[in-house]
Amino acid sequence: MAQQEDVFKKLVSHCKEYGFVFPSSEIYDGLAAVYDYGQMGVELKNNIKKYWWDSMVLLHENIVGIDSAIFMHPTIWKASGHVDAFNDPLIDNRDSKKRYRADVLIEDLLAKMDEKIEKEVEKAAKRFGETFDEEMFRKTNPRVLEHTTKREELHARFAKAMNDTNLEELRQIILDYEIACPISGTKNWTDVRQFNLMFSTEMGSTSDGAMKVYLRPETAQGIFVNFLNVQKTGRMRIPFGIAQIGKAFRNEIVARQFIFRMREFEQMEMQFFVRPGEELKWFAKWKEIRLKWHKALGLGDHKYRYHDHDKLAHYANAATDIEFEMPFGFKEVEGIHSRTNFDLSSHEKYSGKKIQYFDPELNESYTPYVIETSIGVDRMFLSIMAAAYKEEKLENGETRVVLQLPAALAPVKLAVLPLVKKDGLPEKAREIINSLRFDFKCQYDEKDSIGKRYRRQDAIGTPFCITVDHESLNDNMVTIRHRDTMEQQRVPISHLHDIICEQVSMKSLFKKIVE
Amino acid sequence: MAQQEDVFKKLVSHCKEYGFVFPSSEIYDGLAAVYDYGQMGVELKNNIKKYWWDSMVLLHENIVGIDSAIFMHPTIWKASGHVDAFNDPLIDNRDSKKRYRADVLIEDLLAKMDEKIEKEVEKAAKRFGETFDEEMFRKTNPRVLEHTTKREELHARFAKAMNDTNLEELRQIILDYEIACPISGTKNWTDVRQFNLMFSTEMGSTSDGAMKVYLRPETAQGIFVNFLNVQKTGRMRIPFGIAQIGKAFRNEIVARQFIFRMREFEQMEMQFFVRPGEELKWFAKWKEIRLKWHKALGLGDHKYRYHDHDKLAHYANAATDIEFEMPFGFKEVEGIHSRTNFDLSSHEKYSGKKIQYFDPELNESYTPYVIETSIGVDRMFLSIMAAAYKEEKLENGETRVVLQLPAALAPVKLAVLPLVKKDGLPEKAREIINSLRFDFKCQYDEKDSIGKRYRRQDAIGTPFCITVDHESLNDNMVTIRHRDTMEQQRVPISHLHDIICEQVSMKSLFKKIVE
Repeated sequence: MAQQEDVFKKLVSHCKEYGFVFPSSEIYDGLAAVYDYGQMGVELKNNIKKYWWDSMVLLHENIVGIDSAIFMHPTIWKASGHVDAFNDPLIDNRDSKKRYRADVLIEDLLAKMDEKIEKEVEKAAKRFGETFDEEMFRKTNPRVLEHTTKREELHARFAKAMNDTNLEELRQIILDYEIACPISGTKNWTDVRQFNLMFSTEMGSTSDGAMKVYLRPETAQGIFVNFLNVQKTGRMRIPFGIAQIGKAFRNEIVARQFIFRMREFEQMEMQFFVRPGEELKWFAKWKEIRLKWHKALGLGDHKYRYHDHDKLAHYANAATDIEFEMPFGFKEVEGIHSRTNFDLSSHEKYSGKKIQYFDPELNESYTPYVIETSIGVDRMFLSIMAAAYKEEKLENGETRVVLQLPAALAPVKLAVLPLVKKDGLPEKAREIINSLRFDFKCQYDEKDSIGKRYRRQDAIGTPFCITVDHESLNDNMVTIRHRDTMEQQRVPISHLHDIICEQVSMKSLFKKIVE
Repeated sequence: MAQQEDVFKKLVSHCKEYGFVFPSSEIYDGLAAVYDYGQMGVELKNNIKKYWWDSMVLLHENIVGIDSAIFMHPTIWKASGHVDAFNDPLIDNRDSKKRYRADVLIEDLLAKMDEKIEKEVEKAAKRFGETFDEEMFRKTNPRVLEHTTKREELHARFAKAMNDTNLEELRQIILDYEIACPISGTKNWTDVRQFNLMFSTEMGSTSDGAMKVYLRPETAQGIFVNFLNVQKTGRMRIPFGIAQIGKAFRNEIVARQFIFRMREFEQMEMQFFVRPGEELKWFAKWKEIRLKWHKALGLGDHKYRYHDHDKLAHYANAATDIEFEMPFGFKEVEGIHSRTNFDLSSHEKYSGKKIQYFDPELNESYTPYVIETSIGVDRMFLSIMAAAYKEEKLENGETRVVLQLPAALAPVKLAVLPLVKKDGLPEKAREIINSLRFDFKCQYDEKDSIGKRYRRQDAIGTPFCITVDHESLNDNMVTIRHRDTMEQQRVPISHLHDIICEQVSMKSLFKKIVE
């Protein structure tokens, strides 16, 4: 675990050092839980978005996109339930004046209890050596049993309080378990109050005052309120989907783990409208399609798993996460939800407009059911970076850091490197770039030794380095070096386009998905 | 003019009817000055963004992108001048309780004066017929002269008041010229007050209160505050540029002309960092490059003009707009500004961090000067739609509406149409789509007559329709129909990919630019 944390720290600093992710407003000492994408990060992020977008709208004839605004009519968030129910339970310590999420204080205590148990197990493992039967020990050791029972009691009580949104009970748990403020060390707590996670602002200016609007906390509602417009103007027939990529905002009190949980983030959501009663069939189908999409990136099939939800949101009748193995454990990168007809019905109620679909095959009108697939772009970005980041021992004893990004997503596709800075080699290198630059993002680098230049390209995940040497001037051949294998081949310049295209085009990923 | 307005109205309704632009939150009766892009609009918009992005980062080795967050440290907007100076002068009518922009009330009066003059001219033109000498008439007719003098007096007084930010004088003009509230009809006006155009919100939650942050009113500052990070981690050498596409927000009181001026909009900005003293040379160069970029779209070279600014913003030492002929006159689609070192110096002052560049060739450090190119994506979208929208009389007497979009930007690249819905033609059509769908956005349509299907594709600007007939099953040839000429050719299915690619790829546009 310590090693994992170490890798995560290295990854975060690599992200900054090579222009992938910068802390926002860094020269002003930063803005908490907000990050900027640098010159490499923006290309990787754009490629991720393109991979998702094209796999939705190019590969599915019955899926179209939209781009709805961040600002929406405030009643939409009444209808969606966000005004009333999108809250975190907060509690203040009266001495330190610090504010906390009550649920996170309790979760932290649960984590500490887990640690105690694990320490007992570790200690015993050391003591008994190879003869240690861990399972038996956990089941029989009195101290472990005591901790485990206590933990399970707390967990059950906590889960019930959260489920009932019982704020008094949350406070009582904090008091009963004597949870102290990490700053003041005291247990002088206020009541627990609900805090809405939506950012709000004032729009317009009339002498009567402005209109309070929210920054959307999810892109999905922009799809639901445009359902009729898209269905009618696009002549869509059920089943069909609407896809959208865009920013969303949540005023998280505890935002942590780098870009994993941010206050401003980007979503890729697709809402698939189906006949009532067919939703679970489509839910199963989309679970499968989405996992295939992730796996096609080649980051390692074992890094993914489904996590089916036991507890469902008020609008859902089935839900799964696709989890990815991050440096800090398996975490959700995509959610697939069977949202029933909750949203469309609710908008019908609140707007007073009839939101139904006339099914020509059934010859009847109904409110469609919805399967949602929802990815956080930033999480996806983090998962790819985490899987791609490798430190390798080389044969000569040196270490290289290489980002083994899927070639189709790499920010720079090839670097062209003249062996020396003279004798017409730079000119030849530029000639090659000029013939390829409309098709691929290229970099030219003539500084330092070839080895150093390879290291720099490895660090940003460039799949190909092309070296131009003196021979190239005569035979129009160059050396192409492959990032992951470090293998080198001599190839005609005229073949470069096709060799590279084959590897870096998204087509190869799409083919894996539709197979 | 009336005809132009008519065309504009038709364009707006076409945008809605064919899924390009929907009023935001329409089922909730809309949200003023906010729009959503529909299934066709989002594709056109994405293609515009791609055209800009690639022409920046693919065609220029020394330009890289970033994607900075909408939320930034609030002091940034102090440093940029937006907190103090990004205001509109507002005035209330005490009877109607309506609020107006004082400058717009006066501009409306100026426009009315212009109308009066034009009416006199029109009347005389009718009276005198072909012998009418308009120029002479304007110079000598007493009534026209009287109106013109009055207009010029007002204009001079207004310009001075705006230049001096003299709010009392603005109010005095309104009183002196007896401007009445359009609603109440009275002249019972309040004082004029400054109203800041930035949206603000509260971030975080501590018991001491939250932090007030702004939604960025421009993307440019995200580039300036990341200057050091990008320059250092990207090893950039001056001159170099940083490009960014992203949302910006302005709480416009008078937002009109459809998507031309919105409260939430998208910008494509590039800041080019140069040596002090070289900025005007680069300003001239970027003026040229940018105009070429617009013209490469083939919408008509005569529709563009430069508008050099006489009055410069506090940060600029040169500024030009590229204007495009919209249905409501020539309007700015892109601004090119020589921003001096104002922003970087100001951030250095406010942040306390040294923001300089060491120039290895000059062997000295300096604060770079900046040339900015800035496009509103939504305006660009509107300009393209306006130029593309055509009503054509056909030979058979019918009218067709066709969107003559640049093929590289068209939302759908080709439609595949089986002549009839049977005999294996649909299957053949799908086979063609399956062979092309990874490369181009395709549509399949089997409903209604071929003529009607052509009309539908014309209306969304699809460059190619492919018709599959019974012969196709035997000879593997299809009919390809070109949108603008309506010309039809019989071609082998195997040639389709190359024929279409040649026309719709952005490469052809890039080649025009770099020529």
